[in-house]
Amino acid sequence: MKLNLDSAITMIQAAEEKASAIGVPMVVTVVDAGANMVAQHRMDGALLASIDISKNKAYTAVATQMPTSDLAAAGQPGQPLFGIHSCDHSRLVIFGGGFPIRHEGELIGGIGVSGGSVEQDMACGQAGLAAFNLQ
Amino acid sequence: MKLNLDSAITMIQAAEEKASAIGVPMVVTVVDAGANMVAQHRMDGALLASIDISKNKAYTAVATQMPTSDLAAAGQPGQPLFGIHSCDHSRLVIFGGGFPIRHEGELIGGIGVSGGSVEQDMACGQAGLAAFNLQ
Amino acid sequence: MKLNLDSAITMIQAAEEKASAIGVPMVVTVVDAGANMVAQHRMDGALLASIDISKNKAYTAVATQMPTSDLAAAGQPGQPLFGIHSCDHSRLVIFGGGFPIRHEGELIGGIGVSGGSVEQDMACGQAGLAAFNLQ
Amino acid sequence: MKLNLDSAITMIQAAEEKASAIGVPMVVTVVDAGANMVAQHRMDGALLASIDISKNKAYTAVATQMPTSDLAAAGQPGQPLFGIHSCDHSRLVIFGGGFPIRHEGELIGGIGVSGGSVEQDMACGQAGLAAFNLQ
Repeated sequence: MKLNLDSAITMIQAAEEKASAIGVPMVVTVVDAGANMVAQHRMDGALLASIDISKNKAYTAVATQMPTSDLAAAGQPGQPLFGIHSCDHSRLVIFGGGFPIRHEGELIGGIGVSGGSVEQDMACGQAGLAAFNLQ
Repeated sequence: MKLNLDSAITMIQAAEEKASAIGVPMVVTVVDAGANMVAQHRMDGALLASIDISKNKAYTAVATQMPTSDLAAAGQPGQPLFGIHSCDHSRLVIFGGGFPIRHEGELIGGIGVSGGSVEQDMACGQAGLAAFNLQ
Repeated sequence: MKLNLDSAITMIQAAEEKASAIGVPMVVTVVDAGANMVAQHRMDGALLASIDISKNKAYTAVATQMPTSDLAAAGQPGQPLFGIHSCDHSRLVIFGGGFPIRHEGELIGGIGVSGGSVEQDMACGQAGLAAFNLQ
Repeated sequence: MKLNLDSAITMIQAAEEKASAIGVPMVVTVVDAGANMVAQHRMDGALLASIDISKNKAYTAVATQMPTSDLAAAGQPGQPLFGIHSCDHSRLVIFGGGFPIRHEGELIGGIGVSGGSVEQDMACGQAGLAAFNLQ
């Protein structure tokens, strides 16, 4: 199964609804299994820095096949992967808000959310994932 | 007046409808007056190269305050601006498909479309502009 | 169908055989449908410039869904897409040697060859494609 | 002695065999004494992030004339080389998996492996080195 634009928009809108509910404007990006952009929305008032961070969280989730939050511990000073945040043209984001999208176990894309605290970003990303799974 | 996410989506959807009508999947991007991304959609089947080209057409339209097609003549060999296509980190696109978005004479953003021939890209971009003006 | 490493190596070896036959060392790269690297070989004595050009020919073939030679005419001065060679982070190569790889009509990857004249590069790329189709 | 394509492939295949034995798909890259790409293979299922990391581990091993694991300690916060991970266009990887290739004491290239834990990457890189030394 390929992730298409309709599915991506549905996920983004669910993430946006969550962002609105908590009162923090976000940028939400969905990429496909090749880590290529499918759709990106910047909510009114969202941080400009979040444009790139959101995209790279989605990229990282596909490129590492794990949530970006899973990279945080190993990427700290003194830990095995310290320095990975500047690898791969500095596209690897090592804090939460990026999640792989899987369908029947297969990696089909990634969603990345940026704009609030890490916890807020993760909550919005999870809302996007939940919308996808409901389809 | 600022261009917001809702307006951007309306424009993008109008461009997508035109793209569907002519049977060529497109990538459509809208940026704001600061040339920063508001929204980007890649229609199913659109060229991967169009992700970046669409974004940079929108960028170019804001950054030069003119349609990208207006840069084509001056950017040819022997003409005054030859070489401009590789200026500004190669973000300046000198063929059609990018348009400034104006409201009551004020520049409020740009739309960029890529995926088909220059004429097809321009037709879709103009469809997006028309939708905005109707709101 | 996904292009895998074994298929990519088979294609690369066929391109290398052709390159050996004509006496010009080449760099040959295969990317998948997401335009991500699968394999790259630099034959002994091949040009260093060909490392990047070969990769970007393969990228271009996937990202534009056409042989890179098809972009040559439209990308010339005075033609509709002049300037496209510096678009998409200057990854778009507009001379021959890159080919999309299709299986039953579906785009599954791209092959890019660089090291000799355009005609030589194209001949080696076509040898790679032929090997794939025989599998 | 120069490292050639045949030697590089032999090393890569040995690294791949080790990767298969431990059940983790890897990307393996070999560069020459000029730190330029000789060959790169991405095993089926290997992480997309490993394409660049593998290449840059090989680069780093040649560019610093030491295993990438040797940079880890000095690159930590508070240590003499903290910050080196973002030097040299962020190509310097400071965790294990990259090794210089030496022949009779002379640096002739580097191998970089990425895809698993640092220990797994190092084990596969060492398997590649061992194959070379056996030739």
